[in-house]
Amino acid sequence: MSQTKFLLDESEIPTHWYNVVADMPNPPTPPLGPDGKPIGPEALTAIFPMSLIEQEVSAERWIAIPEPVREVMRLYRPSPLFRAHRLEAALGTPAKIYYKYEGISPAGSHKVNTAIPQAYYNKLAGIKRLTTETGAGQWGSSIALAGQMFGLEVRVFMVKVSYEQKPFRRSMMQTWGAQVFASPSMETNTGRGILEKDPGNLGSLGIAISEAVEEAASRPDTNYTLGSVLNHVILHQTVIGLEAKKQFEKAGDYPDMIFAPCGGGSNFGGVAFPFLADKAAGKNVRLVAVEPTSCPTLTKGAYAYDFGDSAGFTPLMKMYTLGHDFMPPGIHAGGLRYHGDSPLVSQLYHEGLIEAVAVPQLATFEAGVTFARAEGIIPAPESNHAVAACIAEALRCKESGEAKTLFFNLSGHGHFDMASYDKYFSGQLEDFHYPEEAIKESLAHLPKVG
Amino acid sequence: MSQTKFLLDESEIPTHWYNVVADMPNPPTPPLGPDGKPIGPEALTAIFPMSLIEQEVSAERWIAIPEPVREVMRLYRPSPLFRAHRLEAALGTPAKIYYKYEGISPAGSHKVNTAIPQAYYNKLAGIKRLTTETGAGQWGSSIALAGQMFGLEVRVFMVKVSYEQKPFRRSMMQTWGAQVFASPSMETNTGRGILEKDPGNLGSLGIAISEAVEEAASRPDTNYTLGSVLNHVILHQTVIGLEAKKQFEKAGDYPDMIFAPCGGGSNFGGVAFPFLADKAAGKNVRLVAVEPTSCPTLTKGAYAYDFGDSAGFTPLMKMYTLGHDFMPPGIHAGGLRYHGDSPLVSQLYHEGLIEAVAVPQLATFEAGVTFARAEGIIPAPESNHAVAACIAEALRCKESGEAKTLFFNLSGHGHFDMASYDKYFSGQLEDFHYPEEAIKESLAHLPKVG
Repeated sequence: MSQTKFLLDESEIPTHWYNVVADMPNPPTPPLGPDGKPIGPEALTAIFPMSLIEQEVSAERWIAIPEPVREVMRLYRPSPLFRAHRLEAALGTPAKIYYKYEGISPAGSHKVNTAIPQAYYNKLAGIKRLTTETGAGQWGSSIALAGQMFGLEVRVFMVKVSYEQKPFRRSMMQTWGAQVFASPSMETNTGRGILEKDPGNLGSLGIAISEAVEEAASRPDTNYTLGSVLNHVILHQTVIGLEAKKQFEKAGDYPDMIFAPCGGGSNFGGVAFPFLADKAAGKNVRLVAVEPTSCPTLTKGAYAYDFGDSAGFTPLMKMYTLGHDFMPPGIHAGGLRYHGDSPLVSQLYHEGLIEAVAVPQLATFEAGVTFARAEGIIPAPESNHAVAACIAEALRCKESGEAKTLFFNLSGHGHFDMASYDKYFSGQLEDFHYPEEAIKESLAHLPKVG
Repeated sequence: MSQTKFLLDESEIPTHWYNVVADMPNPPTPPLGPDGKPIGPEALTAIFPMSLIEQEVSAERWIAIPEPVREVMRLYRPSPLFRAHRLEAALGTPAKIYYKYEGISPAGSHKVNTAIPQAYYNKLAGIKRLTTETGAGQWGSSIALAGQMFGLEVRVFMVKVSYEQKPFRRSMMQTWGAQVFASPSMETNTGRGILEKDPGNLGSLGIAISEAVEEAASRPDTNYTLGSVLNHVILHQTVIGLEAKKQFEKAGDYPDMIFAPCGGGSNFGGVAFPFLADKAAGKNVRLVAVEPTSCPTLTKGAYAYDFGDSAGFTPLMKMYTLGHDFMPPGIHAGGLRYHGDSPLVSQLYHEGLIEAVAVPQLATFEAGVTFARAEGIIPAPESNHAVAACIAEALRCKESGEAKTLFFNLSGHGHFDMASYDKYFSGQLEDFHYPEEAIKESLAHLPKVG
């Protein structure tokens, strides 16, 4: 049997991030302020360092990765590219299946790829303390680890219901030295205000964002960090796709189709954008963003200016959105619950350069179990979306007899998500197709622009 | 900065296991039957396949690893050897610290290294079903994964208190298709008998072993599997040390001291025995088994014939033992609770070829947190024993100014042990030095031999 893993040497960790803006047919749409006019970089300096703001608006194709960032990434990068021989055999497909495994990072997902440079640039700017919000804890863990690596204090506002129900992600963050607060907390005006009126409030991602931003905006030594959506976050994730391209060269192969989970978009953008450059140069590669049917942003949303948060504090961004007051259903087990999507991913989807599919929840877990039984690794529920779409394509290939080369991003492991698998096995999960009527209603509340 | 990871190609997965028996100054002591006479291989055929029994008694130096076993190991092997630059800097030590990371396996620890060949040889012998016991679930997970890879049914008897308190390891085993029963269960005479008298019985490892062995012994298509102690189990683990030797060659270095956690002994034997061959050939390398002060088998036990299980069903083995009715204290968070130790490890310790130290619990967690904050990876509590002993030596080097090369086996990650870290952070853990008096008492119950 041919090789299972395609490894790279540490010296092959990318030296530059790839900025897809340089290869987009049209310039990116600008974020707008409350007055409907494009905002300048200075509007963000209260919560982000200038170096990250510059990356956010850059049109340079290649942006150098600082050596101290590559140095920390050597703890887990380059990540392996696997040929899924056993999965292919289990499916009986003529398709060749490859996956890039980002769960190899200490925090267990691709999120660390942007947490490290975000911590680094903040440290460089003299910042002492980072704040962020976290739901299930994947992003919070990543920034806790990265903050520790650069000697920064990290304060994580964790949605109270997760804080209580998922104590292990919390312990993980504490192991790396972060302070974790159940949100709403007594640490901020936002939190105190909510708790005064409603002491039993279980929190939401929206509230946790407000607490983290409030702290960052009100303390000059403190900045805010975000784990997806923004341009600089996607930029940092392109190490995934850049490594994968080198690994496909070693494998003597090239993907016909690439699948990645898509919530805020950094997972998908990180693996797909470097291949989009090839597509622009004439290569025939299909890039498929995979989202849940319970939060079908690209497949059912509108392409419009909307707020990034539910409370409407952020600048307006042009993106596929289900409306900022969209509420993902509680029965949805994995992440990928964001009402909007990265403006870059949205624009490229709007221009027909990438594709999107939505997968119902039970199919994602079924695919995850099939994968785990063949390849060993138990995927994160988010990653299962890509697994499901890739397996579906492999089965289509079985029918058609096509020997396509399929590639997906296994963005994280499921070690902290076994409660979701448990619910799946015990029949407590169900599918949810977000009703068109409800989407229409939340889209009716989109902010008026221009 | 020099290299962080030393990787091997898949072709460098060892082709043979190393059998330390060939290099021992004296032949291994034989196991004895109830009559005090050495038992023959045939006494074990009811629960083990002949190929594994042959390995158990072999004196051949090299035993070929079957190709289908290497094939499955390619999913995660070779495992990386890391140079702990960040830990060295954090400690300010002139010592060079290396660690081999076995947590890279899908089940998260080195245990998979023996689960795969055990499943393979049973499959080859026409066995349809494997049974085993598990406490916290690390071994059960490994055999669940390995059974799935070779199409064997796996039935795991999981100590009821763990089954209820640690549902995530259970879900992991189920993901890989294993059936998991809270032990005592209604599946066996042993279990039913106990539950009839005491319906609320929370189980013990001893009861779970009895259930697993009863099923295996009473069904011709079913065999029993064990995760440590026995010679063939240690044999399979030598892939760790064999790979490490190649990796040290690539690093242009060689360890002065090697540290590994020691419970049943397969973790320690797996990494240390291949280096013992060098020691026999004149190399100056110190091999240190690290055990908990709450279960100080090598450092406080007697070298004597004793039962392998608490009920006294197994053959008698000559080993360091605290007495088969020794009860490890409930406050002990990690594994390494076995009353005895591998007969091979015991004999080599008795003959002065290896060393042993006992580390108190709080020091192991303190070391684990120091390690995680420097190197990212959160170690399993068992692995923390090796981390603690290695850090202590690195700090001695700091005082003496010696630039020793230290190496430890990071046998697994702590993703399923965060509850123990949580207890550590919240001050719920304490040290326990097993009292000499209590050890004397349990040693007074050693079986009479000859």
